[in-house]
Amino acid sequence: MDDNSSITVPEPTLRRMPSYLEYLKLLERRGDKHVSAPTIAKALDLDATQVAKDLAYTSITGRTRVGYEVAPLVQALRDFLHMDQRVPAFLFGVGKLGSALLQYQGFVDFGLDWVAAFDPDERLAGCRVGEVEVLHPDAFRAMAPEVGAKVAVLCVPAEVAQITADMVVGWGVTFIWNFSLFPVKVPKGVFVQQTSMYSNLVVLLNRLHGQKLEDQP
Amino acid sequence: MDDNSSITVPEPTLRRMPSYLEYLKLLERRGDKHVSAPTIAKALDLDATQVAKDLAYTSITGRTRVGYEVAPLVQALRDFLHMDQRVPAFLFGVGKLGSALLQYQGFVDFGLDWVAAFDPDERLAGCRVGEVEVLHPDAFRAMAPEVGAKVAVLCVPAEVAQITADMVVGWGVTFIWNFSLFPVKVPKGVFVQQTSMYSNLVVLLNRLHGQKLEDQP
Repeated sequence: MDDNSSITVPEPTLRRMPSYLEYLKLLERRGDKHVSAPTIAKALDLDATQVAKDLAYTSITGRTRVGYEVAPLVQALRDFLHMDQRVPAFLFGVGKLGSALLQYQGFVDFGLDWVAAFDPDERLAGCRVGEVEVLHPDAFRAMAPEVGAKVAVLCVPAEVAQITADMVVGWGVTFIWNFSLFPVKVPKGVFVQQTSMYSNLVVLLNRLHGQKLEDQP
Repeated sequence: MDDNSSITVPEPTLRRMPSYLEYLKLLERRGDKHVSAPTIAKALDLDATQVAKDLAYTSITGRTRVGYEVAPLVQALRDFLHMDQRVPAFLFGVGKLGSALLQYQGFVDFGLDWVAAFDPDERLAGCRVGEVEVLHPDAFRAMAPEVGAKVAVLCVPAEVAQITADMVVGWGVTFIWNFSLFPVKVPKGVFVQQTSMYSNLVVLLNRLHGQKLEDQP
């Protein structure tokens, strides 16, 4: 969003942060006390200058010859990523993908706090997926202002992505994570993150089938 | 891979293909017979010239004033994506993410045919996740040459991603889809697709927490 430019961290930097954290946590478990930027860079197949630049966004800087202290850097990364702050989140569309995401511990570790999930399928009403209750989408209306719902995750069929987005934005959501295959249009001030589970698979399969063609005599 | 350059379709084009297919299938269900590039572009928030260029990678071209015929274009996209060809695939690491991916119908629709899943946890041995049997990783050795295993999906803990990659490459795998947070190094001729479930979430949460800071007086 434009109005956040003053505190914007570059997206590629953000995207690398979970890998830094994962690597630092590994070092911590191994009992390592210090690590240098070049060592991190080698492990994660990155450039050492880039690593130092990325990590400078946390409050921690490495010291010459000593490098970074592992434990404080782990905490600085967790703080930078706000991992200890719970973010109430609502999921729409409890199909195969929606169910999987609700049960995925990794998202919970990063702060997502599933308040409820919604699906119009009456057979799902009142069911629980993991620990999350499934409700009819109409229930969101009553719930949204009460909990100050800001984050909605859309796993609905593509053709209802837009009406679902309109509905949640109407009830105060300003951050949409859209897993459906259609883009959604939102008013200014609403942030949409589009994620496709298929895009990387399609690239891999294209290369695979391409190779097969070439292998043929 | 370098040796595929002669038949390489640009990655951004490939990544858009599932959305085209989803939209065309929607039109087909609605009974629409024809659609123009500008109409597709509008629905998917793309540029019409780009749409025409992307779709030209299938064998189908649109006709002036008529546009594309919907049904043949659906089939051309399916053919282009080789969706009717089953690709034997093996998953390593049956944790929360691995289990979710095994049960995700979307990947099956795109051609992934799960032959088996592997996890060293003895409590999982012989279990089924969905319809897929979980075996000890050692079993891959006997199975790989028999079925001509080419595709491995890694959902293992980051610290064992590299040894798992080395192992599967040693037994003939040439396409690795790596969901672990550490990159894997592979010999020339092996294609790796790196996917992080966290990267988009981290961007979204960063913008969210950034906005909160600004909202404070």
